[in-house]
Amino acid sequence: MRATLMYGAGDVRIENVPDSVIAQPTDAVVRVTAACICGSDLWPYGQMPAGSGPARMGHEFIGIVEETGSEVTSVRKGDLVVSPWVFSDGTCEYCQEGLTTSCVHGGLWGYGPHEGAQAEAIRVPYADGTLVKLPVAADSALIPSLLTLSDVFGTGHHAAVRGGVTAGSSVTVIGDGAVGLLAVLAAKRLGAQEILLMGRHEARTDLGREFGATEVIAARGDEGAERVRELTSGQGTSVVIEAVGSRPAYDQAVGSVRNGGTISRVGVPQYEEAPIGLGSLFFRNVRLTGGAAPTRAYINELMPAVLDGSIDPGKVFDVSTDLDGVPAGYRQMADRKSLKVLVRP
Amino acid sequence: MRATLMYGAGDVRIENVPDSVIAQPTDAVVRVTAACICGSDLWPYGQMPAGSGPARMGHEFIGIVEETGSEVTSVRKGDLVVSPWVFSDGTCEYCQEGLTTSCVHGGLWGYGPHEGAQAEAIRVPYADGTLVKLPVAADSALIPSLLTLSDVFGTGHHAAVRGGVTAGSSVTVIGDGAVGLLAVLAAKRLGAQEILLMGRHEARTDLGREFGATEVIAARGDEGAERVRELTSGQGTSVVIEAVGSRPAYDQAVGSVRNGGTISRVGVPQYEEAPIGLGSLFFRNVRLTGGAAPTRAYINELMPAVLDGSIDPGKVFDVSTDLDGVPAGYRQMADRKSLKVLVRP
Repeated sequence: MRATLMYGAGDVRIENVPDSVIAQPTDAVVRVTAACICGSDLWPYGQMPAGSGPARMGHEFIGIVEETGSEVTSVRKGDLVVSPWVFSDGTCEYCQEGLTTSCVHGGLWGYGPHEGAQAEAIRVPYADGTLVKLPVAADSALIPSLLTLSDVFGTGHHAAVRGGVTAGSSVTVIGDGAVGLLAVLAAKRLGAQEILLMGRHEARTDLGREFGATEVIAARGDEGAERVRELTSGQGTSVVIEAVGSRPAYDQAVGSVRNGGTISRVGVPQYEEAPIGLGSLFFRNVRLTGGAAPTRAYINELMPAVLDGSIDPGKVFDVSTDLDGVPAGYRQMADRKSLKVLVRP
Repeated sequence: MRATLMYGAGDVRIENVPDSVIAQPTDAVVRVTAACICGSDLWPYGQMPAGSGPARMGHEFIGIVEETGSEVTSVRKGDLVVSPWVFSDGTCEYCQEGLTTSCVHGGLWGYGPHEGAQAEAIRVPYADGTLVKLPVAADSALIPSLLTLSDVFGTGHHAAVRGGVTAGSSVTVIGDGAVGLLAVLAAKRLGAQEILLMGRHEARTDLGREFGATEVIAARGDEGAERVRELTSGQGTSVVIEAVGSRPAYDQAVGSVRNGGTISRVGVPQYEEAPIGLGSLFFRNVRLTGGAAPTRAYINELMPAVLDGSIDPGKVFDVSTDLDGVPAGYRQMADRKSLKVLVRP
C-alpha cells in the first residue's frame, strides 16, 4: 500500500509500505477514505533534521473498517468510522474521565510502530476505545465536517471548554489557522458574546467572522494585545485561547487576558520555558490551562450539530487532493496558500 | 510614633516616624494591636540591596480605629478591625467580583506613600473597602487566629479554592511555612480526603498533621515527587498547592501533579520563567492557577469557624513579641527557629 513519509524538513514523499495488518486482537485495519494535513504537521515540515526519519505522517482520518481483531466488538467490517488524533483503550481511569490523551495504553499515530493516516490504510490499536462509527456514507457531503472531529474542531472545543467559555463570555482567539477558527466556532456554540479573533490572513479571518468572530485584530505582539485592551475597557478578555503554539503567541495571550482570567492553550508549544511569574500571571491571578485535546471524548457531543447541519466546521478545508498531491499540500499549507488540505486516498 | 523599617537585607530597625494622619476623606487611622511577620517579608530580608530602603514593613494587622475620614461609614472610632494584606476600594468591578488584589484603586502596605503594619499605627486608604469589623475585644484569645485572616489563612484558602479542592480531593501541599500549613487546614475544611504535606521541619509538619495532613513527605525535588507518585498509584495528586515560591518548589509541583490536575501557586514566585511546555504541562493537560490571594473577599466566609473555635489557624504563631523584638523576630524566622512571629505593638 502507499503512505506518506517525512524524511526531513520540506521532504515529504509518497512511498510503498507494507500493508496494514492486524497485529493484536484489539486492532482494526481501516481503509482510509478521508485524511488531512494538520497545522501541527508543519512544525516537523519546517524543522525535522534530515536523517531522523522517515516518519509516517497523518493523525486525522475517516475510513472503512476492513478487518478487526478477535476482541473487537464495537465496529465491524464495512463500518465507516472516524478516529481521534491519538488512540486510546477507552477503559483506563483516564479514558473514563475523558482524558483520552493520557490513556495508559494510548499513543500517537506515526510514532514508533504506529502507522500514519495520510495513507491508503492504517492499523488501529484499541479499536473499541478509539474508533467511533459514523451514521453516513463514505461519500457524504458531511465528510469534511465529520473529519474535523478527529482533531481540529475537537481541539478548538477543548480550548473553549478549558477556558471556561459559557453564555456571555468575552473571548480572544489568537491564531487564524484551522484550530483558531474552529475555537471561534466552538466558543460561539458555547454562547460567547464577544469573540476577538487575532489574525492577519483575510480569507481566514473572513471565515472566522462567519464562524462567529465579532471583531478581527490584525495587529500582533504588544500592539495586538493593546488593541484587545482598547476593545475591552482597558482590561482584556476573561478568556484567551492561544491556538498557535509559538512563544510570541503566548506573550500576546498574557498581554490580552483580563486579571483573574484564563489563558487556554491548544497550539502545541514550541517553547519549554515562558514567563509565569509575579507580573505575568501570579499577581494578576491569571490561570493557564488547555493542552493536548482529548478529542475522542468530545466526538459524541459534537457530532449531532454536524449531522443536522447547524454547524459546518469542514469549511476550514480549502484544498482537496489525492495521496500523490500530499507533498504539494504540505508546501501549500507551509506557504499559507492553503488553510487545510483534505486528502482522499 | 514607632514603626519597623527595612534598610536592606538583614537590616531591620525600629524608628520614630511621623504619626499616622487622615490624608483622604476615605482614610482611617488604626492603632495596631496585633501584627506579624510574614514569610514573604523574608524575601527582602534575604535579598534587599542596601541603600534601596528604608521600606515600611508589615501587611497583616488587627487594630482599633482611632479616627476616620469624613466619607468613611462602615467603621468608627473604637471599633476593632482586621485588614487584608492589600487595601482595596470595595466598589470597583474587580472588588465586586472578589478579586480585591486587582482593585483599580488598591495598593500594597509599605510601598510608595503607604505605611506598614509592624508599627504603632497605620493610615488605611479606602477604609470602607478594606477593613472588617471584629466582634471581639482586642485582648480576646481569638486574636492570633483572626489575624491569620489578613493573609496566611486566607492565602491557604485561596490556594485550595483555586486548586478546586472539594469533598474527597487528593491534595499535595508543598511547603511547611504558615501558608502551607494553613493550606492544609483549608483543604481539610473543604473536604479533602488525602493531604500529602511536603516539608522537613518536624515541629511544623506535626502541626500540619494536626491541621489535617494524612501523610508527611520529607524528601524534596525529584525524590519528593516520586514519593508522592508512590503514594498515589504512580499518578500524583489531582491538586498540588505550591506554597513556597521558589523554582525548585514549582518543579516539584510539576512532578507531583496528576495528568489533568491542577497546580495552585500561592508562594510568591522568585522566578519569572519556568517550564510550561509540551512535557511539563501541555501534553498532560495540567492547569496552573492560584496567585496573589484576595483575602478581603474571604474574611466573612472564614471568620465564623474561627469565632466558634472549630478551627484554630492561629496555632501557626509560635513566638510573640513587642515592636522592639521585631528585628530579632525576622532573624528567628529567617533561621527557621520561629514559624511565625506575632507582634503586639
